[in-house]
Order: sequence, then C-alpha cells, then structure tokens
Amino acid sequence: MSKVPVLPASGFRDFLPSEAAARLSLEETIKRIYQSHGFQPIGMPMLENLSTLQGKGGGSDNEKLIFKVLKRGEELQRALDKGDHSQLGDMGLRFDLTLPLARYCARFKEQLPKPFKVFQIGPVWRADRPQKGRYREFFQCDVDIVGAKEIGAEVECIEAILEVFRACGMDGIELHLNDRRLLSALRDESIPEERWSEALIILDKLDKIGPDGVSRELAEKFGQVPPGITRILSGERVDTLADLHPESFASLNQIVTLLEQAAPDFRIVFNPTLVRGQDYYTGTIFELRHPELSGSLGGGGRYNRLLEVFGSPETPAFGGSIGFERLFLLLQEKNLLAGDVFAPQLFFPLMDTSLRGPIHGLAGSLRRKGLRVDIYPDAAKLKKQFEYADQRRIPYVAVLGSDEWKAKTIKVKDMALRTERSYSIEPISEFLEQMEQLCKR
Amino acid sequence: MSKVPVLPASGFRDFLPSEAAARLSLEETIKRIYQSHGFQPIGMPMLENLSTLQGKGGGSDNEKLIFKVLKRGEELQRALDKGDHSQLGDMGLRFDLTLPLARYCARFKEQLPKPFKVFQIGPVWRADRPQKGRYREFFQCDVDIVGAKEIGAEVECIEAILEVFRACGMDGIELHLNDRRLLSALRDESIPEERWSEALIILDKLDKIGPDGVSRELAEKFGQVPPGITRILSGERVDTLADLHPESFASLNQIVTLLEQAAPDFRIVFNPTLVRGQDYYTGTIFELRHPELSGSLGGGGRYNRLLEVFGSPETPAFGGSIGFERLFLLLQEKNLLAGDVFAPQLFFPLMDTSLRGPIHGLAGSLRRKGLRVDIYPDAAKLKKQFEYADQRRIPYVAVLGSDEWKAKTIKVKDMALRTERSYSIEPISEFLEQMEQLCKR
Repeated sequence: MSKVPVLPASGFRDFLPSEAAARLSLEETIKRIYQSHGFQPIGMPMLENLSTLQGKGGGSDNEKLIFKVLKRGEELQRALDKGDHSQLGDMGLRFDLTLPLARYCARFKEQLPKPFKVFQIGPVWRADRPQKGRYREFFQCDVDIVGAKEIGAEVECIEAILEVFRACGMDGIELHLNDRRLLSALRDESIPEERWSEALIILDKLDKIGPDGVSRELAEKFGQVPPGITRILSGERVDTLADLHPESFASLNQIVTLLEQAAPDFRIVFNPTLVRGQDYYTGTIFELRHPELSGSLGGGGRYNRLLEVFGSPETPAFGGSIGFERLFLLLQEKNLLAGDVFAPQLFFPLMDTSLRGPIHGLAGSLRRKGLRVDIYPDAAKLKKQFEYADQRRIPYVAVLGSDEWKAKTIKVKDMALRTERSYSIEPISEFLEQMEQLCKR
Repeated sequence: MSKVPVLPASGFRDFLPSEAAARLSLEETIKRIYQSHGFQPIGMPMLENLSTLQGKGGGSDNEKLIFKVLKRGEELQRALDKGDHSQLGDMGLRFDLTLPLARYCARFKEQLPKPFKVFQIGPVWRADRPQKGRYREFFQCDVDIVGAKEIGAEVECIEAILEVFRACGMDGIELHLNDRRLLSALRDESIPEERWSEALIILDKLDKIGPDGVSRELAEKFGQVPPGITRILSGERVDTLADLHPESFASLNQIVTLLEQAAPDFRIVFNPTLVRGQDYYTGTIFELRHPELSGSLGGGGRYNRLLEVFGSPETPAFGGSIGFERLFLLLQEKNLLAGDVFAPQLFFPLMDTSLRGPIHGLAGSLRRKGLRVDIYPDAAKLKKQFEYADQRRIPYVAVLGSDEWKAKTIKVKDMALRTERSYSIEPISEFLEQMEQLCKR
C-alpha cells in the first residue's frame, strides 16, 4: 500500500484533544447563553442547492467563494457535453448561516412562532486563499429574530452576544453601531443610487487605507468625494449628524441608551463610518471589535428584505454573529480558555485481566452516577498506565489488584497530592457515594 | 427579483425547532455518556483531500458515494483541458468518521495518549439515491480506542454505546457479535483468498435474500457453496464452531461474558453470519439491532491495519458507531424523545416601549442567574404576545406594565394553571430569588 498524506486539505484544521475540548466548552457556553436569552435551535443542511446560495443574483463577495459540489453520473456527463463550466456543480457548501435561515423562514413561515428567535452554531465554508488566521472551514454563532420590526430585536440580539463576551471574561470589547439608512443619506445627486454601493465599498476600507486613502479612491472613481462622506471622515461630532436621517439617528440613540444600561461594562460607539460588507442590510448594523485585534470579532444587522428572495412578503429581521475562531484565538492568547472540563475524574488501571469483570462492574456503577470514569483496556505495566493517567490529567487512580479484590478494598491515589487511601467496596452503595464525594470535591 | 425555491437540496433536511431541540438533546445525552466512559473529543475538518478519502484504493462502496468538491480557478481549467473527468474535484465530503480518524492518529501519533480514547459526533455525507429514511447528510456518533489490542477496547466501546440506549429508555436492543477471523476460517481451498470478500458480500445479504438466496448466489459465483458457510447457514449451534478459529472464538466468549455482566438488560448474540460491510475490519465485529427495525442501529469492529494506509506501523484499534438518525426515528416512534429542555422558563411581554429599559434590566439579571428568559421585541397586542408564549410553551409570563412599574410590582401568570400572583421587585435580590425558585420548581 502506498502511503497517503496525513495532513488535512489546505486551509483546513485538525484540533488536538485539549484544543477540541476547549472549543467544545466555548461552544457550550455560547449555546447556554443564547438559550438563556430565549433563542431556539433549528436544523438545516450544510449544503444547499447552488440556486439558493446564488439566489440573490448579486454576485456578492461571499458568493464568489462558494465551494461547489460536482454533479454526479449522467448529470455530470450532460454538463460536460454542454461545455459550460458554470454547470458542473449542483450544490454548494453554505458560506454563512443567514441566507439558509432566510430560505428556512420562507419555507416554514406558517408554522414558526412570530417573531421567531433562533440561534445557530456551526461551520461555514469559503474558498478563500488560505493564509495565517484565515481558514476555509470556520464556525459562526448566530442569533436572529425574524418578524420583529422594533429596536427590541436589536437590543435582544446584541445583549445576548455581549453576554457571551462577559461570560468568557473578555474585557475591552467595543460595540460599533451605525445604520444603513444613515449611510444612504450621505449620498448626493452627484452619484446615482445604483452606484452608491461602490462608494460604500471604498468607505469600508477605512481601517485599511485611512481617511486620505478613502478620499483619494472616491475621487478617482467618482470625480469627487461626496460631501456627506467628507463630513463623517472629518470626524464631525456624531450628534450633529442627526439631520442626515433623523429616524435612524433616533433609533440608534435608543439602542445605545438601552445597551449602555444593560451592558455598562462595554464601550458602545456610534460609528458613522461603519459599513459591514453584506448588501442585504437595510437598517441598524453593528460590529464587535477589540483594540488588540484588527478586523472584527463579529457583527450583524437588520435585513428586512432578505426573505423576499424566497418569495416571502417583506419580513423585518435582525441578526448578529460571533466569529468563533477569532474569539477562540483571543481567549487563548489571554489565557481565558476553560481547561478540559470533561476529562475523566477517576481511572482504573488494569493489572490482572481476570479482574476485568469487577472493574467494569464498578466503573459502570460510578458512570451511571454521573462520574466520568476511565479504564485502561490492556493489561500493561503499571508505570505506563500511571503515565497515561498523568497525561490525561485524571485526578484519582483507583487500583484494584488481586490482593485488593480478595480483601474487597480498593486503593485510591490522589495524583496531585501523591497520597493514597483504602476504601472498602462493601457495601457497594457506600463506596459509590464515597467516590462521588471525592470526585465532586 | 425572481423567487428562489424554499426547499433544501434533494436528500437533505430542515428540522423545525421542536425536532431540532430534541436532536440537540439526544446529541448531548450521547456526548455526556461517551465522556462519562472516558472518551475525549477531537476536531477534524468535514472535508478531506480526495487522496485521503480514496486512499485505501479499494474502491469500497462508500468511496463511490463521495460528494466531490469542484476544483477552482486555474486548476479547474487545467483539469477540463485534460478532459479527464476524474480530475475535476480536489476534495470530498467525509463519508464516515473512521477514515479521517485514522489519518488524524497517524499524524499525531507522538502527541496522543496511548491508548487514545476518542469520541466524535457529527455529520457525514453520501451521494446515495435519496429515498424514504435514507438521507445524504446524516449524523454518526463514534467511539474509538486506538492503540489497544486486548478485548478491553471492545468492552469499553460497546458498553458506552449500550449505555446510550439504556439512558434513552430504549428496550429490546440486540447486540450481534462476530469475528472477521472466524469468517476467514470459513474459507476452503475451492475459493482463492483474494476472492473471499466476494463470498462475504453475498453472505452479508442474508437478511435480505435468506439462506437459500445466499447459497444460490454463492453456487452461481463459485460453482459450489463453501462448506464453512453451509455450516453457519444451517444453524449449527455456535459452540460447536470453536474449531474454526479457536482464538477468536475464545475472545468472543470473553467479550460476551463481560458484556452480559455489565449489561444484563440487553440481548447479546454470537451471530456467525454477521459480516459488516467495511473491508478494513480485522477481528471482532458487532452490530446493534432492534426487532422492530430492519437494518442496524449502529455497529463497528476492530481495524488493526487501517492506520497503515497513512504510513503508521500496525496499530491495534477498535471502534463503533451509533446511527443517530435511526435511533432518533425509533425514539420518536416510541415517544421517548425529551421535550424542549431548553425552552424559556419566563417570558416578558412588552406593552409599553418606555419600559424596555426596566424589562431588559430585570431579564438580564435573571439570565445571569442561569434562567432562560424571553422578551417580546415589539410592542404588540397582549393577546398576540400570550399566544406566542403558548406556542413556545413558556410556563410563566411576567407582566410589567406602567401601573406595575409605578407600584414596583410584577404580575406573574402560571400558563398551565391559569393563575397569577404579584411579586414586589424591591428589593431586587429577593425578587430574583423568588423567580429562580419558581422557574426551577
């Protein structure tokens, strides 16, 4: 047999058990907090028909990054015969969780609660060029409220997201808020409406190219810098921008006030230069940043018209997402990750294969009491088995050899203190209780 | 905008919130039990290089069902220019969790505990023709012990799997056991070794075509029915089969004895006709069945040579899997699924938008106490908001209108009993405690 490479595909990752456990534990924290805020789970496939993923027809940046699934059998042959490369795939891996959610809500609109509060935690894929910190498979953690038009949706979603950062012990998070309607109001007649998104794409590069770079690119593209953009680039005090779009200015003010009450430990900023890339946003937009990180830790916005793609009537909706990978990285750097909270608590080495029965019996009873118990599967040298317990950081080792079995006792070693104590295994109920107390201590 | 279809791709499924919650709850049960048996989590991508997935070169049935990912950009163009259809994809969606695990263990063999006890719960994909009960994306729940050669690995994995069925309240599960070495010993010289797997593929159809069908197909293919197969098809008492392969017969006997002690509530059967499809099995194999279900609820086996595909030396390994979808279906039919254990416990309707601040404040404090609390995001008619609480089966509704706010009280309705009671919200600590007691009751 020829040797097959052991690395995952380029841009994809394996996680060692300790990192996998920390990821699982962060995932469970996020899930718990989203659920405590009343968001409910749904299930959707990880692949969608290409017509769904490309449905908006906008050719957005994310749509260009779809991993396509090759057609099979006769359909593939037909596509090849036609010689049209765009017809070789029939499905694609989802590139975000929002577009499939819109399809789902349009499908089930009669059955879902109104408003519909939903969370999703799972992988998405983008065929980006792999580079440091950018992966082709990564997790997103979304909350959405579909069917709610007032700012209560904004406050609920953003509060849930901020609560995750609080629960992780992550200080220094900044919440940047803006409103797409305010950005639209920056336009003057010198630029036609259908080209305004090009101007916003340039404004969106502010962090990378600075205000001078933005002005230069705008001037190059449009012959001039729109006066509205000059105002916000010049650092005009935001409270004087109200005249641009009084309605969105008022709603932003309410959102900021409510969030400042609810989350006084976060810095909340009205940032009139915030754009967020997606073309489907229609109102409030937000982004989470951290001073030690370029780019964002998450964000979202109001997308009142996305469901129309799937034939639904206009449906107000708001949602946001935590970028799991960046949050995980930041927590790792700050030493804020939980250890392996699911590691075994008690370990039975195996010295004598004739004692498999009693050991599996005791372990089974302890496991059914809710303890996490490990057994060594082979009769190996005791030293090797203790090394195993050390490597897995199991706090207690329960030694049952033939002498102990005859005396109906068991020796339990405390691996941290390097002490040991004998316990009688009769009556069994008392032994189980003693082990329960020991492990839960 | 033209309307995009709202259905998922053929063979893929959406889950409504109640079903998604039940799936999540079953997933967490399985995870908890696997962890209580000392299995640890790992992380692997859901896509692999095609060379990994096709690495065994055996062209097994599952390999034929790989969803391939289309190459991109210049590489796609190059593949098209060559005119070789087999070169159009570069990656594939994993079709099981075992082959990627073998790659992972080969990659990290120096860093992993020995033996390595691992669990995985996640989706796999197969490009099967969709039909009732057969999906293209489905969950598997695996436990594996890599690096253990004795029957302790068999017992640990199978016990953990049986414990899942016990925890779900699922009666009537049968465990069928066999050993691939015993199956090999059925061969006589009339059939060359390299064609023996063809005979086993026919034997594997026993459930579908019966013993006569198996005999007929064997006779057609090989000119005769191998005498060993005639012996097991004739229903010979299994304890007289020991002469075929004494070593595997002895180890099966030990496994059965240990499992009968540990899991006396399961029917454990030595079934000499059990084959299991995978060609990588080298020793013990097992399958979980239920009398009301055709096919299996899971299974697995020993695969001591699979890691060699990835250049590792021979590494003993044993693993097994629960078929999540079939288990879920059976639990659903038997009304054994958990309800939505994560539904909100308390709901705040919103009657007066000026009270958003106090409501979000109270809800935030309750949520940080660990309660699941929902708030209606829009100021809608109270009737509509109560209907929402009913639909989501939220047991308590906390009404805070302007009168209550002035009096610093809150009215809490018990939705099941249709009773209500007023609580003072001052002092706040006392109110929070009262709500905690109410919701945890």
